[in-house]
This record gives sequence, C-alpha cells and structure tokens, in this order.
Amino acid sequence: MVALGGGHGLSASLHALRHLTEAITAVVTVADDGGSSGRLRQEFDILPPGDLRMALAALCEDTAWGHQWSAVLQHRFRGAGELSGHALGNLLIMALWDLRPHEQVRGLDLVGRLLNTRGRVLPMALDPLDIEAQIEQPGGSGTALLTTVRGQSTVAAHPGTVRSVRLIPEAPRACPEALESIKLADLVVLGPGSWFTSVMPHLLVPELRQALCDTPARRILTLNVSLSDDEASGYTLAEHVAAVATHAPDLTFDHVIADPQVARTDAERAALEAAVAGVGASLVLTTVGKQNHPGVHDTLRLAAAYRDVMAEQGL
Amino acid sequence: MVALGGGHGLSASLHALRHLTEAITAVVTVADDGGSSGRLRQEFDILPPGDLRMALAALCEDTAWGHQWSAVLQHRFRGAGELSGHALGNLLIMALWDLRPHEQVRGLDLVGRLLNTRGRVLPMALDPLDIEAQIEQPGGSGTALLTTVRGQSTVAAHPGTVRSVRLIPEAPRACPEALESIKLADLVVLGPGSWFTSVMPHLLVPELRQALCDTPARRILTLNVSLSDDEASGYTLAEHVAAVATHAPDLTFDHVIADPQVARTDAERAALEAAVAGVGASLVLTTVGKQNHPGVHDTLRLAAAYRDVMAEQGL
Repeated sequence: MVALGGGHGLSASLHALRHLTEAITAVVTVADDGGSSGRLRQEFDILPPGDLRMALAALCEDTAWGHQWSAVLQHRFRGAGELSGHALGNLLIMALWDLRPHEQVRGLDLVGRLLNTRGRVLPMALDPLDIEAQIEQPGGSGTALLTTVRGQSTVAAHPGTVRSVRLIPEAPRACPEALESIKLADLVVLGPGSWFTSVMPHLLVPELRQALCDTPARRILTLNVSLSDDEASGYTLAEHVAAVATHAPDLTFDHVIADPQVARTDAERAALEAAVAGVGASLVLTTVGKQNHPGVHDTLRLAAAYRDVMAEQGL
Repeated sequence: MVALGGGHGLSASLHALRHLTEAITAVVTVADDGGSSGRLRQEFDILPPGDLRMALAALCEDTAWGHQWSAVLQHRFRGAGELSGHALGNLLIMALWDLRPHEQVRGLDLVGRLLNTRGRVLPMALDPLDIEAQIEQPGGSGTALLTTVRGQSTVAAHPGTVRSVRLIPEAPRACPEALESIKLADLVVLGPGSWFTSVMPHLLVPELRQALCDTPARRILTLNVSLSDDEASGYTLAEHVAAVATHAPDLTFDHVIADPQVARTDAERAALEAAVAGVGASLVLTTVGKQNHPGVHDTLRLAAAYRDVMAEQGL
C-alpha cells in the first residue's frame, strides 16, 4: 500500500493503515518552508525533513520501544536559544543526508531500520519545492481580488480562498523508489491533509501524476473531516474533489471516503456525489472523524473504512 | 571491566578493551564546558553530553551498521548557522534527557540499546561540574606566578603548568550505577586522557574515589603516549603518576602502563619507576603508541598490553 500526503493528514492515514498491513510506503510532500524544516532548508539547502520525520514517527513499531523512539523523533527542543523549536528527528535525518548528500532515500531507510519502522518513508521529489498559490479575496463591490502567494507556510496562513497551486520548480525530479512503489502497489491512498499544500502537490509532480494514472492499484481519495482550517475555509468537499480533477484531469479513483458530518445538507451531498462520480469513483460516506475532536481522523474508524474498501475490492 | 576517563583518551581505552570483552562500562567525566557540549550546557543546564557521546560511539558494534551509526553520532553540522558545530549524538542524548529529565542513565542506556553498543556508558557524576585549576607560570627573576583558572576548556588551553585541580561543586553526587559497576568489576582502568581535566576529576568525586579504593578489582593506570599538548607540557610521566597520589593518597594500583618513547632517559625511567612504586604498582613499559602518529594510542597494542596484564592476574 502506498499513502501519499504530508503532515498530520498523512500521519492519520499511516496510523490507520498500519492496523491492516506491514507493507506501507509513505510518499511525502517536500514543500514545507516553515518552522524547524524551513530553518534547516534555508541553512542547508536540503529537502524539508519535517513531514518525512512525522511519517517515520507514525510508522514506529507499536511497542514501548517504538513509542519511546517515536517521541524522541518528534521531540522539539525548548527554550529561546539556537536549538529552540528544532525537532530531533529533523536533525537526525539531516545528519544522515549530510554524511551522504546524494542518498536521501538511503538516509530515510536507515532511520527506518534503526527504529524498526513498519514500511518505508519516501520523499515525493528529490528537489526541495516551493508552492505558489493564487488566492482569492473579496474585493470592493462584489469583485474578487487574486493574489499570488509563495511558500507553503505563507499560503496555509493567508486569508482568502486558494484557487490554484503550482510548484516551483514546475517539473521536479520524482523519487524513483516512490514511482516504483506506486507501480507495484495494490492500493494507493491520496489524502487526507492540507488540501492545497500537502495533497495537491503530489499531482503536480509530472512523473508522480503519471504513475498514479498508470498504476493497476485501486485508488482511494480520503477527504478531510473538517473544512474549518485557514486553507480549507470557504470550500466544500465537492470542491476539494473538483480540485483533484482540475490538477490531474486524467486521474480516476475507485473510492472517495468522506465523513457525513462534513457534508450535512442534501445539496452538499448531491454536489459531493456528482464530484465523486466525476473522478470515476463511488462515494463511501462513513464516520471517520474523532468524536469530540473536530478535524481529527479516528484511527480505528479510518482503518475500518480502508478495510471495508479493500474487502470489497478483494484485497 | 570499567574504564574511567574522558574524551579521546577514554575512547582509545574503550577501543582497546572491546577487543577483549563485551562487558565494558565506561565512566565518563562531565566537566566539559567547551564547544557543542558547552553551548548545550549553558542553554539547558544539563550534563555535558560530548564525552558521553564519544564513549558511546567508541562502543558501537564493529559492523558496517555500527560504524555507520558511530559516524552519525559523531557527525557535526557544518556552516555558520545556529546548528554549526553541534554533534548529532549530543542532540540525541539531550532529547532523551529532555523527555525524562531525571533519568540521565536511562537515556544513555536507550542510546546504547538503540545502537547495539557493547557495554554501557555512565557519567561519573549526576551534576554538571566545573574544573578550577591552579596554574603556574614563570614570573620575573625566577619566581613563579600562580593563577586560578576555571572551566575545562579554559584550563586545557591556558599557558603554564597545572599544579592542582578541584571540582565545583566540591562533592558532586556520584552516579550510583558507576559506583556499583566499580564494586563488581574484575578490572578497572584509569586513563589515558587529558590528565588534569579528564582523568584527575574522577578522583575528586568523593564517592567515586572511595569506590576505586574499595573495589576488589585489579587497578590499571594507563599513562599518556605524549606529553606535548597544552595541558601536559612541562610534565614528566613520573609527575603524572605523582599527581594521582596527590589527588587520591589512599588509592593504589596493580599496574601502570607506559610507552618507553615517553620516558627515554635513564633518569626519567628511574623517576617513573619510583613514582609507580609509590602507588603500589608494577610498571609495564611497552609500546602502546601509534607509529608515525604521535600522541595517539595504537588500539591493538594497547589491547595486547591489557590482555597481558589480565593474563598475569589470572583474569
């Protein structure tokens, strides 16, 4: 199985999938330019390690030992000094890349082997990327203002509605191991996550988009359980599905998983059904959000949804 | 076996001992205040991790895997930015201490287990220490000037001859696991290393000095193979042995290992013999220095010297 995404969304998907299999490959966005990753990227011109670290932590083995090392990877230094805010896992990944600068995948594999993670964590591209977005804000007298904003962290925090995103550079080198894993997969899962800055970027790497179109694997699109963060506000789930169709017109899916809480009205559901049909998929409307914890996927319910879809597909 | 010291000297002893046994405990000085350790210590008020890291790296397993992780622990970040000069291993140790602030030994054990090191690495004390030295420099008309200098890195680099050292605080808490390991050891090795800033400090921790006096283990003192660094210049090996007697009058040894290159004249050897007899030991004069590499111990020759002494003692 291959899960594509970034940040907490990908982490949720990995936590769910590890209940079902040990053969997981995470393909991770590398466009982060904020926080610890942003500082490291600026100083050392490397792939931003943060989302990769988070995926590795999510795949740590489910034992006291694994939890311990997951916590160590995720640990951020305190204080106001030079180390403040850096996650140890980012520094560990960076040290491995420093020792062998052109072997990014090998470095990630070594961390995985050291911590005995389930599965493998790969970057979606071998070049650090920037995201540039067209953001729409209401102008005077009913008009709309389009602003071009660059940088994942800036885009994610910018007021307004993201209309489209592109990558800089436009055609980064895909990670060959990621392409291979998609080619060989039984199941590919895209999303959940920050839709325009963590999920859509995968569709903008030309070779990766092509691999997703070409794979004989079943394809699942997992939608978010909240539309209230900065980046998603102003959107419906139907529009998120439509964004996929816009960024990758040839890509179809087998199933789209959505939580009924996020499409409450008949009109919203009808629009979602139509959008899902537009990408060739059937809609799986099932509770996957965490109770009393808006915006967060429930690991076991999401695992159950994946399991049901797999069973239906004979996987 | 227990090896006490710090820095490159302890590392040399550990590299030699691991040829002879898997049951090694390193007891490491915690007075460093320079470089990466000094910066971390200043920012976070923790034990300086540098000498502990170096000992862990020295005990990494002798396989491609072990060498890889030893290199990662020792890796220092480049550049001129906020991470510049920090060793990854220091940051890893610090993250574990951050997560469980009062379990320093457990954190070191976890790194050891993660990297599958041979043996165990322990701090000599549970409190970060400062070293204060009386340093003698020639004054005018044949007089001598005594200066009090504080801080390991300042002492090590200060011109003149170290006359005595003391710890601040004067009676730090010893590490209970280190005391226990000395009590249970067959063989205890003190030195080599920076004599006044890495070796003598062990004798200044009251409980540790007492444990060394009380242990039924055989005791070996390993002298340096060079007297030309800042701290040792102006000294003879006999004076190094005498310094041990000054700092721990009740402590005796079974063997003192020295390289004949460092005591070349008959007078030097006679003085060394007398000093060695003064601590109750027999002198083992054998080549342990590396050829064409002054000041560095040859791992296999030092291992051979330890093995011969052990055989003589029926160990």
